[in-house]
Amino acid sequence: MTDAHPVSGAEKASGPVGHAIGLDDLEAAASRIRSQALLTPLLRHPALDERCGARVFIKPENLQRSGSFKFRGAFNCLSMIAESDRSKGVVACSSGNHAQGVAASAQILGMPATIVMPADAPQIKLQRTRDFGAKVVTYDRESEDREAIAVRLCEESGATFVHPYNNPAVIAGQGTIGLEMAEQAAALGVTLDDALVCTGGGGLSGGVALALSFKSPDTVFHTVEPELFDDYKRSLEAGERLSNRAKAGSICDALLTESPGEISFSILKDLAGEGVTVSDEDVLAAVAFAFNELKLVVEPGGAAALAALLSGKLALKGRTVGVVLTGGNIDPQMLMKALDG
Amino acid sequence: MTDAHPVSGAEKASGPVGHAIGLDDLEAAASRIRSQALLTPLLRHPALDERCGARVFIKPENLQRSGSFKFRGAFNCLSMIAESDRSKGVVACSSGNHAQGVAASAQILGMPATIVMPADAPQIKLQRTRDFGAKVVTYDRESEDREAIAVRLCEESGATFVHPYNNPAVIAGQGTIGLEMAEQAAALGVTLDDALVCTGGGGLSGGVALALSFKSPDTVFHTVEPELFDDYKRSLEAGERLSNRAKAGSICDALLTESPGEISFSILKDLAGEGVTVSDEDVLAAVAFAFNELKLVVEPGGAAALAALLSGKLALKGRTVGVVLTGGNIDPQMLMKALDG
Repeated sequence: MTDAHPVSGAEKASGPVGHAIGLDDLEAAASRIRSQALLTPLLRHPALDERCGARVFIKPENLQRSGSFKFRGAFNCLSMIAESDRSKGVVACSSGNHAQGVAASAQILGMPATIVMPADAPQIKLQRTRDFGAKVVTYDRESEDREAIAVRLCEESGATFVHPYNNPAVIAGQGTIGLEMAEQAAALGVTLDDALVCTGGGGLSGGVALALSFKSPDTVFHTVEPELFDDYKRSLEAGERLSNRAKAGSICDALLTESPGEISFSILKDLAGEGVTVSDEDVLAAVAFAFNELKLVVEPGGAAALAALLSGKLALKGRTVGVVLTGGNIDPQMLMKALDG
Repeated sequence: MTDAHPVSGAEKASGPVGHAIGLDDLEAAASRIRSQALLTPLLRHPALDERCGARVFIKPENLQRSGSFKFRGAFNCLSMIAESDRSKGVVACSSGNHAQGVAASAQILGMPATIVMPADAPQIKLQRTRDFGAKVVTYDRESEDREAIAVRLCEESGATFVHPYNNPAVIAGQGTIGLEMAEQAAALGVTLDDALVCTGGGGLSGGVALALSFKSPDTVFHTVEPELFDDYKRSLEAGERLSNRAKAGSICDALLTESPGEISFSILKDLAGEGVTVSDEDVLAAVAFAFNELKLVVEPGGAAALAALLSGKLALKGRTVGVVLTGGNIDPQMLMKALDG
C-alpha cells in the first residue's frame, strides 16, 4: 500500500472481510496439529537487535517438522479428509516445502502421496520428499502446467488435491503461527508493532495476518517478496490480483508463484500494511547472517523477511518486530554462495 | 564409571561434596545474567526421536549470545569483579568460545579484554573475538604455555584473570543451563532420565550436573568427550584426575583440554554417570544431522553430545534425554567437510 500511515488490523477488519475463515477455524487447526507439529519458540538475538535498531522476535519455522511451516497447513488439511477417502491418497504441486509437509503428513496418517515438483527444485527438497515416502513426479517449470498434471493424477486415482495455498484448511493451519506469535509475545509482556512474513502464494501470510487481526490487532502486517515476484505488493496497491511476468530469476525457489491466491488476497487486501521487496543480494546476506550470527540454517525463500529487516527497506527503528523464518531446506552449494558473498 | 547401574545424582549427593558451589550460587548467577543472556528454548524434533528411539530434548546453546554457552559463565564472573578493578580489565585463555563470551561480556560492562588464543583456532572464532572489541594475543599450542602468557599479561596490567572452567563463578554461570533445563522439562511435564553434555575442562558439565542434582535429582549426568581427550571418563573411573597425552588430533577444538578442572572434577566424581567418547566421524555426522534435520548450525565440539546420542554409544532407547548443543562457531570449510561425509 502506498498509504503513508498504514492502519492496523483492528481498524481495517471492522468492515466486512471477503473470506470464510474465522478464529474458530484457526483454533480448530491449532488443536488438530498440536500432537504432531512442533511449537516453535519465539527467539531473540542481541546481534539482530543491534543491527536493526529494533526489538526483533524471530519465529523460526525452519525448525518445524519437515523443515518449514508447510507441515502445519498440510497436516491440518489432510487430517480433515474423510476416513473413506484416505486410502485413495493425496496429490500436491510444490517447489519442495509444501511437498515435504504433505509427504510427512501423509506418512503419519498412513495415506499415499504423489507430489508434482519442478525438475529444477533444490536436490535436498526432492530427496527429502521421497524420504517421507511420497512418489515424486517432476515437470518442466517453463513448458508444463503443474496443476494440469495434478488434476490428471487425481482423476486417475480418486486422490484429494491439496493446493499449496488457495485452500482454507491450509491457510488456517499456517495461521496457527500467528496465534502462537501473539501468545508468545504476550507471555513476554510484548505487543508486536509489525510482523514481516515471506510471501509466495500467500497461504502463510493470509493465515498469519488473520490470526494477528484477532489476537494482536495493533500489529501491522507486511508481505515480503522477491523483486521479480512482487505480485502481492502490486496487487495490494492496485486493489486487484495482478500476475508476475517472470517465471524464474530469483533464488527464492519457495516464493515463485504467478499471482496471489484468491482466498489470501481477500484476507490481505483488508489486513496488510506496506509490502516489501528484496533482491537476491539482500536474501543471500540474510542467509549468511542467520548462519553466522543466529546459528540457524535458513533457505533463501525462508530468509526473505529477515532480508527485509536487515536491508532497512522498512522504517522499523525503535519498533517491536516479529519476523517469520519460513524454511531451512537449503542445498549446501547455495549456503556456500551466501557465505562467500 | 564402569558401574553397570549408575546411580542418580540424588543418591550420590547425599554424602559430602568436595566443593563450595551451592544452589544459592547458581540462582544468584541466573539472576545476574538474566538481563543479558538469552533464555534458550528446549527444542524437540521427531527426526531425532525416531533416529534414537528416545524422547530427546535439545538445549541449543549455539543460539546463545556470542554463539556458545560460554557467555553465561563469563558474564556472571565479570559482573562479580569489583567496580574499582573493572577499568584494569580482564585476561582470558581460550580456543575461541570462552574468548567470545569474555569479550562480549567485557564489551557490555565497558571493560578492556585481552584474550590469549591458539594461532590455529578457527578463523571465525579469532575474528568474532576481535569483533567484540577484545585484543587477541595468539600463541603456539604445541610449544607455548597459554596460562604463563596470561599470568604475565595480568601482572603487567593488573587485569583480572578469568579461567575458562576452573572458577566457581564461571561454573555457576554455566550451571544456569541445568536450572533452565530442569525447569523447562518440568513445565512440559517431563523428567529427564539422562543428560548428555560436551565436556572439555568441565566448567559446563560441573555446573549442569550440580544444577540437576538440586532440581532434577533423578537425572543421570553423562560427560561426552572426543576419543583422544577422554580425561574425564578415565579420571571418573579411576577416582582421580588424569591427563591426556594428546595435544591435538580431534576436530573438537573447543574440547581440547589437558585434564579435568579441579573444582568440576570434585563435583562430577560424585554426580556423573557413565562417560562417553566420540570419534571425529561421529562428530561430523552429528554436525551434518544438525544442519540437515534440525536446521541448527553446530560446531564440532558443540555437537559431541549429539554425536553420542546418534552413534548409539549409550543405551538410551525408550528414555527421556536432554542434550546440550554447546556452540555454533564453525568455519564454513568444516561444515562442508561434515556435509560431504
